Amino acid sequence: MKRILAVAQSGGPTAVINASLVGMINEARQHQCFTGIYGLVHGIEGGLNEEFIDLTREDEGTLRRLLRTPASALGSSRYKVQDEDYERLIHVFRAHEIRYFTQIGGNGSMYVCHQVAQIAQHMGYELQVIGVPKTIDNDLAGTDHAPGYGSAARFLAIATRDVGRDLEAMATYEDVMILETLGRDAGWLAAASALLKKHDDEAPHLIYVPEIAFDEARFLEDVQRVHSRLGRVFVVIGEGIRDTNGSFVAQSNAPTDTLGRVVYALSTGASNELAVKVRQHLGLQVRLLRPGLIGRDLSACVSPVDRQEATLVGTAAAQYHANGLSHYMVTLERLETPSSYSSSIGRISLAEISGQEKLLPRHYMNAAGNMVTPAFYAYALPLIGNIARLGRLQNVRVAKRF
Amino acid sequence: MKRILAVAQSGGPTAVINASLVGMINEARQHQCFTGIYGLVHGIEGGLNEEFIDLTREDEGTLRRLLRTPASALGSSRYKVQDEDYERLIHVFRAHEIRYFTQIGGNGSMYVCHQVAQIAQHMGYELQVIGVPKTIDNDLAGTDHAPGYGSAARFLAIATRDVGRDLEAMATYEDVMILETLGRDAGWLAAASALLKKHDDEAPHLIYVPEIAFDEARFLEDVQRVHSRLGRVFVVIGEGIRDTNGSFVAQSNAPTDTLGRVVYALSTGASNELAVKVRQHLGLQVRLLRPGLIGRDLSACVSPVDRQEATLVGTAAAQYHANGLSHYMVTLERLETPSSYSSSIGRISLAEISGQEKLLPRHYMNAAGNMVTPAFYAYALPLIGNIARLGRLQNVRVAKRF
Repeated sequence: MKRILAVAQSGGPTAVINASLVGMINEARQHQCFTGIYGLVHGIEGGLNEEFIDLTREDEGTLRRLLRTPASALGSSRYKVQDEDYERLIHVFRAHEIRYFTQIGGNGSMYVCHQVAQIAQHMGYELQVIGVPKTIDNDLAGTDHAPGYGSAARFLAIATRDVGRDLEAMATYEDVMILETLGRDAGWLAAASALLKKHDDEAPHLIYVPEIAFDEARFLEDVQRVHSRLGRVFVVIGEGIRDTNGSFVAQSNAPTDTLGRVVYALSTGASNELAVKVRQHLGLQVRLLRPGLIGRDLSACVSPVDRQEATLVGTAAAQYHANGLSHYMVTLERLETPSSYSSSIGRISLAEISGQEKLLPRHYMNAAGNMVTPAFYAYALPLIGNIARLGRLQNVRVAKRF
Repeated sequence: MKRILAVAQSGGPTAVINASLVGMINEARQHQCFTGIYGLVHGIEGGLNEEFIDLTREDEGTLRRLLRTPASALGSSRYKVQDEDYERLIHVFRAHEIRYFTQIGGNGSMYVCHQVAQIAQHMGYELQVIGVPKTIDNDLAGTDHAPGYGSAARFLAIATRDVGRDLEAMATYEDVMILETLGRDAGWLAAASALLKKHDDEAPHLIYVPEIAFDEARFLEDVQRVHSRLGRVFVVIGEGIRDTNGSFVAQSNAPTDTLGRVVYALSTGASNELAVKVRQHLGLQVRLLRPGLIGRDLSACVSPVDRQEATLVGTAAAQYHANGLSHYMVTLERLETPSSYSSSIGRISLAEISGQEKLLPRHYMNAAGNMVTPAFYAYALPLIGNIARLGRLQNVRVAKRF
């Protein structure tokens, strides 16, 4: 009798999601209870279509390289699981003697995990289900933070700091830079752009997040005020910022599909909308930065802390399975030490987090809603890992003689 | 009597332009002939406005950090030097006893260097002028390549490879990715996106450069063909691609300034134009990547080779000045070795390169004009430095049982 462990990767990839997969495979190999390890090809769809990879056939070199390989090696999925799918999935699992199931994913994936666990129980099929957290958006409830966030945050922090220096250098010729980040509903990523900012004058100067209603008039005042003071403005916005009516800033210029629905990914983006406004109302030049998915994949900006934690949550999932646990998501818990950051592994019931979403707390943004607070630095700075300081000239001026 | 060495940074910054500055300062300190080292604040404008920094006052720690600091630490300039400015500049130089002048810059800066050298001579003012090459665009004539290019190329190669993996993972839900690179007239950067591609199926699948007239119908055919074969298409375009009439693809939707001129930086970009076309004509979903200036500044993607060479061209400039040379640009010469890349420092007369521009040679692109050739790999791959390989699952399928 087989007892197969099956694992899927779900939703948008991250730069470290494969580290969780590798952590799980390496740990599972240590436990006799798993007679095999299968990967679902393209997430839950692989389960429904009976497309599995035999992960015990992967060699050490491949796994070592996968630790540093961005995006979902198994293929991912955004398939909206239908009610009737769950039953079919259990039948497929039964046919393959799959007794342990893990999805590495975000909120949607944890909901599916919860459903799978419940329906298996209902059908009298013995199946252990453990979710592994993953999302650059950091909007997973029940865990201090989600693997994937630290690396995406690191990219945005470095990019903002570095292009901020460019804007300083070119300030006579450039006025405003607008960086649009991923994070449709949550401002965690936009906020992270400030993590390497040391002084008021450094980038970013203004941050707008989806959680706080966007007021165009106040935005234009903010930009004007910073520009008057510094001659340059570095603005960061979450792609999903919306006005007081809840309408997306980006929406008005987005094309619609055959059913008349707005196709958000095809929009020229909130940054473009705002660029036009800044130019029309303030007469300033604007440059846009829309790195898009580069922000979730760039292997050159992986946070060592993030990779390590991503590996550990995968390892823990295999251990939980081996220990007979089910219906849990693995969590990261922050250990309160005054001097340095550390985390430990925990777990939370899938029922407790299913359908939840963790938005950026209001006190991580200032009263004006346009910059992060020290509390946010304390939370997020340890997650992006160490980054070497940049230099800055002392700038000792020579007396004029001419 | 003083004999001051003055140095300026000009044009668009790079991730390694400060390495050239540091190389120059460190070398100049070894030579008695320089009684001081001044930096021009914001390029040639600092000279015209008599704004100089005393660079001998900078400590070792600052210089060491500047080696790894992107963007122009002295401030840069895009000021179009007027005829009357040159004379004023020489007067300012005379007042400060500046006898050695270097600009770290691209084509425009080398033209200015050439003019300054000639006008000083004409005015009977003894001034040595040495240009130091710098441009991410790699369009400087007379040198094998320009410092700054290797790092910008490294960013694009890694970003394309990594987001290419994301597109593979999400292929069921995403069709087309369009990455727009910097490089208005030259395709060196767009071409660099292919440097980590090992197989036909990997990203990028199609590359379009400004040097080859863009044919929309053929582009749509190309996209359709790749999509039919793979179910996904990763397209890279240079921001300045133009049609057979020489009209920018991006131009039609760009706003104009008060004089009716198209403001290119405010355009929603060629990538947006093409995204709309792909959707309209082929019915495919498109995602855009417009990292913009992140591509020239990101410290996390600096090529070690590039940083080293940037330092060396700065060092060489100080040596040339000390040796009494003038009217030259420092160059990088490739040493022809069959096994490994190496370069040496050379020089070329400013007169010979002034007004020149080095575009991507036609044989670095295939006959169809939509992908680079092996000759381009041989040229560019050594410049981006070593990059760890990614992993890929062996993908051993489990037999169906249900």
